[in-house]
Amino acid sequence: MGTANAMIPLTSDISSKKETVCIFGTGDFGRSLGYKLMQCGYSIVFGSRSTQNSGLIPQGATVLSHTEAAETSDIIIIAIHRVHYSFLESLRETLNGKVLVDVSNNLKINQYAESNAEYLAQLLPGSKVVKAFNTVSAWALQSGGLDANRQVFICGDDKKAKEKVMEIVRSLGLTPLDNGSVLAAKEIENYPLQLFPMWRYPIYLSFALSAFIFLYSVVRDIIYNYVENGKDNSFFIVVTIANRVCPVVALILLALVYLPGIFAAILQLHRGTKYSRFPDWLDKWMLCRKQLGLIALAYAFLHVLYTLIIPIRYFVRWRLNSFVLQQALNNRTDPLWTGTAWHSDCYLAFGILGFFLFVLLGITSLPSVSNSVNWREFRFVQSYLGYLTLVLCTVHTLAYGGKRFLYRASYPWFLPPVYMFSLIIPCIVLVMKFFLIFPCIDRPLTEIRQGWERKPKYINHSNSNQSTKEMSSV
Amino acid sequence: MGTANAMIPLTSDISSKKETVCIFGTGDFGRSLGYKLMQCGYSIVFGSRSTQNSGLIPQGATVLSHTEAAETSDIIIIAIHRVHYSFLESLRETLNGKVLVDVSNNLKINQYAESNAEYLAQLLPGSKVVKAFNTVSAWALQSGGLDANRQVFICGDDKKAKEKVMEIVRSLGLTPLDNGSVLAAKEIENYPLQLFPMWRYPIYLSFALSAFIFLYSVVRDIIYNYVENGKDNSFFIVVTIANRVCPVVALILLALVYLPGIFAAILQLHRGTKYSRFPDWLDKWMLCRKQLGLIALAYAFLHVLYTLIIPIRYFVRWRLNSFVLQQALNNRTDPLWTGTAWHSDCYLAFGILGFFLFVLLGITSLPSVSNSVNWREFRFVQSYLGYLTLVLCTVHTLAYGGKRFLYRASYPWFLPPVYMFSLIIPCIVLVMKFFLIFPCIDRPLTEIRQGWERKPKYINHSNSNQSTKEMSSV
Amino acid sequence: MGTANAMIPLTSDISSKKETVCIFGTGDFGRSLGYKLMQCGYSIVFGSRSTQNSGLIPQGATVLSHTEAAETSDIIIIAIHRVHYSFLESLRETLNGKVLVDVSNNLKINQYAESNAEYLAQLLPGSKVVKAFNTVSAWALQSGGLDANRQVFICGDDKKAKEKVMEIVRSLGLTPLDNGSVLAAKEIENYPLQLFPMWRYPIYLSFALSAFIFLYSVVRDIIYNYVENGKDNSFFIVVTIANRVCPVVALILLALVYLPGIFAAILQLHRGTKYSRFPDWLDKWMLCRKQLGLIALAYAFLHVLYTLIIPIRYFVRWRLNSFVLQQALNNRTDPLWTGTAWHSDCYLAFGILGFFLFVLLGITSLPSVSNSVNWREFRFVQSYLGYLTLVLCTVHTLAYGGKRFLYRASYPWFLPPVYMFSLIIPCIVLVMKFFLIFPCIDRPLTEIRQGWERKPKYINHSNSNQSTKEMSSV
Repeated sequence: MGTANAMIPLTSDISSKKETVCIFGTGDFGRSLGYKLMQCGYSIVFGSRSTQNSGLIPQGATVLSHTEAAETSDIIIIAIHRVHYSFLESLRETLNGKVLVDVSNNLKINQYAESNAEYLAQLLPGSKVVKAFNTVSAWALQSGGLDANRQVFICGDDKKAKEKVMEIVRSLGLTPLDNGSVLAAKEIENYPLQLFPMWRYPIYLSFALSAFIFLYSVVRDIIYNYVENGKDNSFFIVVTIANRVCPVVALILLALVYLPGIFAAILQLHRGTKYSRFPDWLDKWMLCRKQLGLIALAYAFLHVLYTLIIPIRYFVRWRLNSFVLQQALNNRTDPLWTGTAWHSDCYLAFGILGFFLFVLLGITSLPSVSNSVNWREFRFVQSYLGYLTLVLCTVHTLAYGGKRFLYRASYPWFLPPVYMFSLIIPCIVLVMKFFLIFPCIDRPLTEIRQGWERKPKYINHSNSNQSTKEMSSV
Repeated sequence: MGTANAMIPLTSDISSKKETVCIFGTGDFGRSLGYKLMQCGYSIVFGSRSTQNSGLIPQGATVLSHTEAAETSDIIIIAIHRVHYSFLESLRETLNGKVLVDVSNNLKINQYAESNAEYLAQLLPGSKVVKAFNTVSAWALQSGGLDANRQVFICGDDKKAKEKVMEIVRSLGLTPLDNGSVLAAKEIENYPLQLFPMWRYPIYLSFALSAFIFLYSVVRDIIYNYVENGKDNSFFIVVTIANRVCPVVALILLALVYLPGIFAAILQLHRGTKYSRFPDWLDKWMLCRKQLGLIALAYAFLHVLYTLIIPIRYFVRWRLNSFVLQQALNNRTDPLWTGTAWHSDCYLAFGILGFFLFVLLGITSLPSVSNSVNWREFRFVQSYLGYLTLVLCTVHTLAYGGKRFLYRASYPWFLPPVYMFSLIIPCIVLVMKFFLIFPCIDRPLTEIRQGWERKPKYINHSNSNQSTKEMSSV
Repeated sequence: MGTANAMIPLTSDISSKKETVCIFGTGDFGRSLGYKLMQCGYSIVFGSRSTQNSGLIPQGATVLSHTEAAETSDIIIIAIHRVHYSFLESLRETLNGKVLVDVSNNLKINQYAESNAEYLAQLLPGSKVVKAFNTVSAWALQSGGLDANRQVFICGDDKKAKEKVMEIVRSLGLTPLDNGSVLAAKEIENYPLQLFPMWRYPIYLSFALSAFIFLYSVVRDIIYNYVENGKDNSFFIVVTIANRVCPVVALILLALVYLPGIFAAILQLHRGTKYSRFPDWLDKWMLCRKQLGLIALAYAFLHVLYTLIIPIRYFVRWRLNSFVLQQALNNRTDPLWTGTAWHSDCYLAFGILGFFLFVLLGITSLPSVSNSVNWREFRFVQSYLGYLTLVLCTVHTLAYGGKRFLYRASYPWFLPPVYMFSLIIPCIVLVMKFFLIFPCIDRPLTEIRQGWERKPKYINHSNSNQSTKEMSSV
């Protein structure tokens, strides 16, 4: 016991001394990380082939040979390129039982068959390989301006080794995120090479839709007029047609946010269970609904701006002036048509309310906002308010169209106006949703979503007594 | 010492193996949680009455009887409904000393007298009950799409038990939040059942105000005109009157954000201390100021949209055309009234600046933004900029009114225009704030808020020498 | 071994009991913190000179003399002012080996030569001083409304002591951030006294620019007209001139966001290395680019609002009416000038798209959004989309100017229109950027930024073979 007592101050002495971390490699990232670690109170020993280039090494750090450096610490950060990993095999003895932190990245997604961390673990089976820091940039470490992502993804097979690395991450003011075993390294190594993977298809889709509607409108509004009436309306391209593309794409994309949910509900009702997987395309579609919705909001925002500048446009002012002059010259005054006033105001009011709710949806999809609501609230906003937005925007478009679809003049060269295209998918979604909220359909669907199964034919017979007893959903 | 040395690799071996977690209940939530835990490297053993229904169980998990399963792990997640807790009493021996994680939720707020976790702790006093995971949804665990709240509230009486559960929470990529002893379970169990509790009263209030002002305006502007002049202005409802309701409600709500602070200051000055509690209504009012402000911003946003579409409205275009035609037919031209130009521009400029500051306030109240400022900065924005916004919006409304209040025509059926109502509370707030920033009032108030007390009559005599010595405020 | 076994339940018993924390000082902050700690399950003992003033002390807490109180706990929170620290020397024996948490703040930045925590550590070298909680407000602790910053910065020389304090911080629902050794206390103590330090220079600059352009425009548009034509346009101040100041300042500030990056690239190319430090002014400029950009966005937002209300202004309506009446009285109608229509629409469309991208940039600079993207995505948005925004806004301004610069009337008193000033810096930035993306310049720059050095003359000779082998950039 005496020894133990004597140990306590000793331990506490040791703990107050700086821990030593070894870094293999004196390249840009190794030096930046070493510099930052020293700022946070660690002693740094660099392992390098040549121990002379001390000019770039942060002041206060030691440079030793790889073997000597490795012996100073239990944690070795491997800041060298994968192609040079093989030389580490010669240090196998020294590195045995130590924590090796793989910080490397590749140049391309899935460049090698196995991840760098797995490759390192295979080379040195006696060491504990932990993947970390690869998502942090050398520049960010140097400048201290960690504006972007502060999350450090970590994986590894050894829990204690991971915990040690996590402690280092935390003391740098970063947030460690445990991603499981070393198998997760592949995903982590691909992460910093990605460029908005979830946004790709929604953006492609919106561009394709925009291009189609733009070309269609050019034919219908400019070429038709030029061919049939000899009028040059080409300047319509810039604002008039842009303001026709934006609302149409916005409404279609908004409807596409809710369409996969309808499909999923029908599939679940048909199968009578929620435990069989959706087809792959539906899964992917479900996962990019947020992105579809935000792109729709961007288009709606552009539509609002394009609409609000209408009265400033020279063309619009000229047309209004011509109209007034025409009346003045003919000594004629129009009375106020109350019906038209109703129609114009309703159409605008639906648009305003729809856009307002759309902005609200956008705000609640900000990570920090969605993080501060519970699931019930999140679903309330994204489902109820979302459908309300869709209804308002659809009604806005219907009101915009009004009786226009009745007149022959709306179909030059038999081409219907574009707003009609934009109404197809929203109307389908709303009609199908209307049927899905009928109690006779909604009740079994809710039960299925709580884990109940109509006829468990897809899997071997489970006892449904059991599942009603146990917690189905939270 | 030899034994100790031999132990080290052994311990490290154990730590690198997957830890085992036992889950009672193979319902939806139990399975989802088990699946997610397995992904993160845990071994999962399900405890179930029947060990046959392996179809739904995630691959790789074991299903045993409750007793056998409980023996495999120190942590048992109780994913069964409260009504079935009683059968756990039969396992009292096995569960003794083990960590039981209560993940259950109720269907209604305050459904039972005691929380589910307390009930479980009473049933099994030898076990360490920890409440956790009830705010996470089964769907979110399954789909991996943890868009909403990542916080897992945890409470329990045993610190070590809580820490074990927190470690599991962290390794799932979620954020544990220690809420204290098991007494906090009641609050945690109510949390996922809430639907915007802080927003309820502000929303009710704003709807009630909107309804009143809408009906009042309908009487004053539509029914009056119909009865007295036989004119049908009913289409005013859609935009004109909506654009009267929005600014009025926005300004009243904004003033209501600052009114409780005025009341609190007066109370503190009157009582001469900050340590006596505010009346309950004032406390509640203070706590929903942010919500009041954000709803006011929403109304202000609608007001801006309704105002900006004015020149696109058919009615407005018709009225402007009629006016010009009238002048053209009478061969008359109006000169530019500089006073009117000043008035119109000032009114618009105040509105723009007020709305701009209002949006700034809204942005700084986003959780991630307010999280990156210190208290001095937060108070600067929310207090100084907030009052500046209130001043600008009040002046905007005063400028809008202008000399209108002098004319008889502004009071059809003796009803004053609605903008006058909106000015009452803001003017009261601003006048009272004006007095409160007088040095002779501000100085004692600041001292009181730093902990000084005028005459400690409410409590037994504390020595104020002492309190000046000790830290009063940070 | 038997002893060890017996110890385990004992330890676990102890851990389930409430830990005791001692607080020196019963002032406002000490009491608030004590109250909050008790809510979270800690036992609180206050150390105070007089043990009688129990009125303000939270119920359930004990008040003892300083010595007695200090003996109850290993952690003592020192909630007394720095000027009274000296009396703690008399408790040196009792406080030996204990964790002292310094929560104090000063009234001014850099009030004392050494930080309060360092001073405390010098007074009591045997104690383990940890700085913490100084960024938390007493009011926030009391009210529970922790809307603002939840981060608690912590520093200290003893790791274990820091960890204990961090555990307390976490159990209060706050986020501890380890800032390193006690030397960091100075920075932490200054933090809560700061008022937007990074925003100061950008705001000063934007105000100075606004004032200059405002005065210039007053001279050019109002005084000139008054002196030469005797016309009183003074009401132009409110909206017309404000809407000239906003876009000019916005565009200049946006260009100033990208100018330092150009300078840095030229410096790096000239020096042939990235490892020599930038001059101080450039470093500071680089660090406040985000703030410059956000202020530019605010001005752009005001510009949009000022532009959208144009058609509602009395002056604009009067001018349009006069124009139409003039035409009506002269029986003259203008044809539609297609060139003018193109010009007007292009100018508006560029502005809309530029503003749209600007808003997008603003949204991605929200902390929670930038936190959810990786570095590649962050740079893509802030660099590519940023330059695209600058191009669109510059083209918008060029299109606004159009041929105006050719006419004599644009130069009253030889003063050019203000939009010309706004074009200088953006054009310089875009031209220089145009040259920097030439492959023959871009390639060496990229290599330099990855750590390559042309001629390491600034530092003693490092072997560049080495640096190509080791990781240069992530």
